[in-house]
Amino acid sequence: MNRDPVVAIAGVTGAVGAEFIATMNRRDFRVGKLKALASARSAGKTVDFRGQQVVVEELTERSFAGVDIALFSAGSGASRRFVPAAVKAGAVVIDNSSAFRMDPNVPLVIPEINGRRIREHKGIIAVPNCSAITALMGLWPIHQKNRITRVIISTYQAASGAGAAAMDELVQSTRANLNGQVYAQKVMPHPYAFNLFSHNTAIDPETGYNGEETKVIHETRKIFEDDRIAVGVTCVRVPVLRAHCEAITFECEKPISETRVRNMLAGAPGVRLVDDRTGNYFPMPVDASGQDDVLVGRIRQDLSDPTGHSISMFVSADQLLKGAALNAVQIVEMLPQRAMA
Amino acid sequence: MNRDPVVAIAGVTGAVGAEFIATMNRRDFRVGKLKALASARSAGKTVDFRGQQVVVEELTERSFAGVDIALFSAGSGASRRFVPAAVKAGAVVIDNSSAFRMDPNVPLVIPEINGRRIREHKGIIAVPNCSAITALMGLWPIHQKNRITRVIISTYQAASGAGAAAMDELVQSTRANLNGQVYAQKVMPHPYAFNLFSHNTAIDPETGYNGEETKVIHETRKIFEDDRIAVGVTCVRVPVLRAHCEAITFECEKPISETRVRNMLAGAPGVRLVDDRTGNYFPMPVDASGQDDVLVGRIRQDLSDPTGHSISMFVSADQLLKGAALNAVQIVEMLPQRAMA
Repeated sequence: MNRDPVVAIAGVTGAVGAEFIATMNRRDFRVGKLKALASARSAGKTVDFRGQQVVVEELTERSFAGVDIALFSAGSGASRRFVPAAVKAGAVVIDNSSAFRMDPNVPLVIPEINGRRIREHKGIIAVPNCSAITALMGLWPIHQKNRITRVIISTYQAASGAGAAAMDELVQSTRANLNGQVYAQKVMPHPYAFNLFSHNTAIDPETGYNGEETKVIHETRKIFEDDRIAVGVTCVRVPVLRAHCEAITFECEKPISETRVRNMLAGAPGVRLVDDRTGNYFPMPVDASGQDDVLVGRIRQDLSDPTGHSISMFVSADQLLKGAALNAVQIVEMLPQRAMA
Repeated sequence: MNRDPVVAIAGVTGAVGAEFIATMNRRDFRVGKLKALASARSAGKTVDFRGQQVVVEELTERSFAGVDIALFSAGSGASRRFVPAAVKAGAVVIDNSSAFRMDPNVPLVIPEINGRRIREHKGIIAVPNCSAITALMGLWPIHQKNRITRVIISTYQAASGAGAAAMDELVQSTRANLNGQVYAQKVMPHPYAFNLFSHNTAIDPETGYNGEETKVIHETRKIFEDDRIAVGVTCVRVPVLRAHCEAITFECEKPISETRVRNMLAGAPGVRLVDDRTGNYFPMPVDASGQDDVLVGRIRQDLSDPTGHSISMFVSADQLLKGAALNAVQIVEMLPQRAMA
């Protein structure tokens, strides 16, 4: 590619859409032209891109003529419907939805872990589920040195994972609660102000796991390329705006100490240790929000495993950045055609 | 005791203090006279007790003459200082603090689990830590039938566990956040509005576990009278006002199915199953708040254990009621001298 790429963003008016633009700006990502795409409802609006007002067009099968790179974050329904047209038009699609993640022809990529898989793409590269990314960034540096055989995760997930409307609902319903007013929720299935609830994805009647949890299990195996890793996970929505947290306990093949884990994580790309026992300072959403790094702390021997094979820790990451937009932009930066530019 | 007991409440102006009174009223708990005790700061205020304004007196060593029952919830410092005086004056103390919980002479009681230990008291009966109560209410009916060998808990703890001032800080800091104002926190060590953080008790430098986590581990063993049960726990404060939640994964000695767990919990005293997979309806703080029962749901096989010995579930309980005031009043109701009245 000898010219700067034409980049389409599908879902440009959403929470991740805004972060695609902000992340590209922050990283001096070269863009020849931006195509701003969204549902018919948003067509005609404008988005600011590097000082220019770009008019939002309706996302259709015909949106992708001349597009080099298409960043999709418009939900899995829109991805299933429009990604094939984008690929057919010659675009490389980075898809933030779950639509193609488990397709064996689609690399599922966290650049710090399996970026080498990017060059195997056949038009689509999938961004993993945000809860999976948040956990795996902290687990990979360990898994490489001492295979993780089992992991148990409890998530504390932010509103942003359900989109801008959910973030707004958290704010508006909290305001109403503080003013003693009744708020009729429109986006979330349960009251969100000063409340938390099990992740609002459908439950598999067979396993009892919800959609989010099933994604974490399957995507962990695909990204780690390890079908044996045993994953148990509970996904919970908490009244936080845009950074996920996770309490993680994992067991390794060989005995492991907290000191070794700390050493394995120190300097790992995209990971920042926040583990101050004296100051009682550990990963928090307020610190992870707006940050690229996944914060990891509370690293300690799991006292429920007297054999010394198990460690507990607590992580936090910006759901809109490393959990979505940043991970997608990192993938584009590693595309072979860019290297050839 | 042929007359209605004289009841003292130490910490009557606190969040649990108010619930002591409300719970006694709700349960038609007979009280001859109420002594309202609090720190010097609150002396002279009044509290409403069954339509009468009772003047709050300063809690001192001399507060307990003629008192039959003393309910303490004024922090472990106040308990260490004043409980011995209350016992010496002849009162039976129900202590909500951690001061005497691990004393081998002090029964540590959840009435539904080990109420029979109450009659062994030597003047003090301790109410367990609220996170321990919340977990153990759901685990005990299982443990009796199929010994639990290991449990891993992640908590989602409400502000109320840190008292009325912390609840107020959550409300005030959230209001400030929504109004774009800066809020200087006074009670919590970290911002609380739309944020969460590791439990603010000191970290044991040896284990890396904080005070709350260490309590859950030790108190579980004492209440279950089982020194072998292996407990791993991560305690986290979330922006919720008064009900704790916990994601719990436990392993049993013999294989166990989710159906068996559901059957063991159905009808267990103080436990209510809230486990609607089709409706995506599970235990939530908004439903547990103001309720006596511990809500248990999301009961499912732990997919990280292919041997079928492990179950995951999610629980929620009102921290001020079953986690504190209700559990204390239940203990008083089971006191031998009341049975003899």
